[in-house]
Amino acid sequence: MTLSDYMHPALDEEQKMLVDTVGDWARERLEPLAATIDGEKAWPAGLLGELAEMGLFGVPIPEAAGGAGFGHLSYGLVLTELAAILGGAALHVWNQTSLVSGLLARESSPRPELGDVMSGSRQGALAHWGASGSGRPEDLEASVDGNLVLNGQTRFVLDGEAAQFFLVLATEESGLSLFLVPRDEKGVRVSSEGARMGMHPLGASKVEFEGVALSKANRIGTAKEGDTLLSSVLIEARAGLAMIGAGLARRAHEEALRYGEERHQFGAPIASFGAVAQRIERCRQAFGTSLVLGSTALRSLDAGAPSMAAAELAHASSADLVMRAADDALQVFGGYGFSKEYVVERIYRDARYLGCAL
Amino acid sequence: MTLSDYMHPALDEEQKMLVDTVGDWARERLEPLAATIDGEKAWPAGLLGELAEMGLFGVPIPEAAGGAGFGHLSYGLVLTELAAILGGAALHVWNQTSLVSGLLARESSPRPELGDVMSGSRQGALAHWGASGSGRPEDLEASVDGNLVLNGQTRFVLDGEAAQFFLVLATEESGLSLFLVPRDEKGVRVSSEGARMGMHPLGASKVEFEGVALSKANRIGTAKEGDTLLSSVLIEARAGLAMIGAGLARRAHEEALRYGEERHQFGAPIASFGAVAQRIERCRQAFGTSLVLGSTALRSLDAGAPSMAAAELAHASSADLVMRAADDALQVFGGYGFSKEYVVERIYRDARYLGCAL
Repeated sequence: MTLSDYMHPALDEEQKMLVDTVGDWARERLEPLAATIDGEKAWPAGLLGELAEMGLFGVPIPEAAGGAGFGHLSYGLVLTELAAILGGAALHVWNQTSLVSGLLARESSPRPELGDVMSGSRQGALAHWGASGSGRPEDLEASVDGNLVLNGQTRFVLDGEAAQFFLVLATEESGLSLFLVPRDEKGVRVSSEGARMGMHPLGASKVEFEGVALSKANRIGTAKEGDTLLSSVLIEARAGLAMIGAGLARRAHEEALRYGEERHQFGAPIASFGAVAQRIERCRQAFGTSLVLGSTALRSLDAGAPSMAAAELAHASSADLVMRAADDALQVFGGYGFSKEYVVERIYRDARYLGCAL
Repeated sequence: MTLSDYMHPALDEEQKMLVDTVGDWARERLEPLAATIDGEKAWPAGLLGELAEMGLFGVPIPEAAGGAGFGHLSYGLVLTELAAILGGAALHVWNQTSLVSGLLARESSPRPELGDVMSGSRQGALAHWGASGSGRPEDLEASVDGNLVLNGQTRFVLDGEAAQFFLVLATEESGLSLFLVPRDEKGVRVSSEGARMGMHPLGASKVEFEGVALSKANRIGTAKEGDTLLSSVLIEARAGLAMIGAGLARRAHEEALRYGEERHQFGAPIASFGAVAQRIERCRQAFGTSLVLGSTALRSLDAGAPSMAAAELAHASSADLVMRAADDALQVFGGYGFSKEYVVERIYRDARYLGCAL
């Protein structure tokens, strides 16, 4: 099962090489550490540096802004390769690339933070949810007053504990503005939201701002441009989640197929029984469907004809299909699937996150 | 909700014009007759002639063979437009175009039957199943002997009762050959398989051959080339079924959305209740997903890089998603959805066929 079987047009040489490089790295370097990262909820020393060295935090960022300029589809393919080995690794790259770097790269004179994120020397985090978690602007609880003093809080901030700076969507007069707020600014407080089901080691943080003094230099873009800026990264971000779904489903399929062929009952491999074969097949469908939908939306960006409808469809369908595929794969293992000894247990937990993101 | 929202690249001008033309015809001419066709299981006089006049039985057939040469994606879009009004109309065009015309067009010197099918003056039917219905070559029950005498039977032949000729896949020595057998040939007997759930008026027929004398001129292609010929049309045929699924799901969505906004309970439109909104949204996802998957496979054909994997994925996923979408749409109507007064009842029955085809 290769990616190109399902896609049209097929991958070009640059994309194939990128997929091979990232896939090899993920199998050789990430795979042996994946269970430990999931269990200890922490990155091993140096691992994120390797991602940065491969340029994986800047795949779709234009060369003019210091990125690789490989395009949106290539970026999505990277996410698929990483997610097939560890969902949290793909989600971290997604978060730093599509949200943090993606927003910073929209400024005409990029800040030093953009280069630092791409080189792996700093991490950022997007703080854009209201405490209600609705994501609706009217529910945003962070606001700046006329003197640019920031007050409020945001919740469920991905990569929040490790972030050296926050991109904060805050109400300013009647609009929404985006500010870059260094973590060590006076009045910034970060606390963990507690343990989460999966997508480790990415935790979620509550970030509170109490009388944080900002200047115009903290503003990303212009005043009240915040929601426009956020919208501008959403197509890539949503399609990216579908590509993470494709990776999780591909792994679920591989695991279920392998086990289904190895495991015998009544003198035959269980994959030869219809009910098991159907579960395995659904994993493959979830993979192919997420890949095709995600790719279609990413190609629309690469061609300069962005489609939010395609991206929303990709995200929503993938979240739905992959969760059921993970359930199918787990069930192929029977009782063993519930054990942390088998990777389908982690895929099941990681897959559930896709619907919660964005 | 337009097709192009979900697709990349978007439709070109020729495709848009075709979609508009067929969509207008279907709403103006087919829609008022749809419930009657479904109930009486018969085409009204002249209706199929109108399809033929628009060239709809030859959309993807090359111009050299007398077709429109509009390509595979355009063909799929026609199926989507027709299926949104009446599933059986789309399935009839699919059957005559992808299977009958598609196979006949593969011959270097096309027979008169090809032109007749495209002009609407004759219909054909593909008789390729063994009595077991497995579709496996070893289960085929039709065979020819050394003197080219055909014996056997095939079942569940679509358009069988109206067909003036059959394309018969039969065992010849150790291979499978395809023969064109006129219905009025001595020894050919056609009988109905009885009433079916949906996709009216297309019934299914049992076709029996008893000592039917053939000559080499009856053979399509060369001896033992039958399965190769059949394979050559399967990508388009499977992707075509996904496009029919897209049309059924689009209509399911339209109906559910309209009713959900009209119908009030507890002082609010029921579409504002989460459980109903979710069902409506699933219809939209089934539409978009079937469209994107089907289009991807059809584009692979148009580009000369055919992908059977993409077509199989499109067919399998669409069959699955659309069936559930039809169920969701029916449920939005509550008890009314079970009544033949509402079109979702027919969509539910028609949708179930997609998984049974091919």
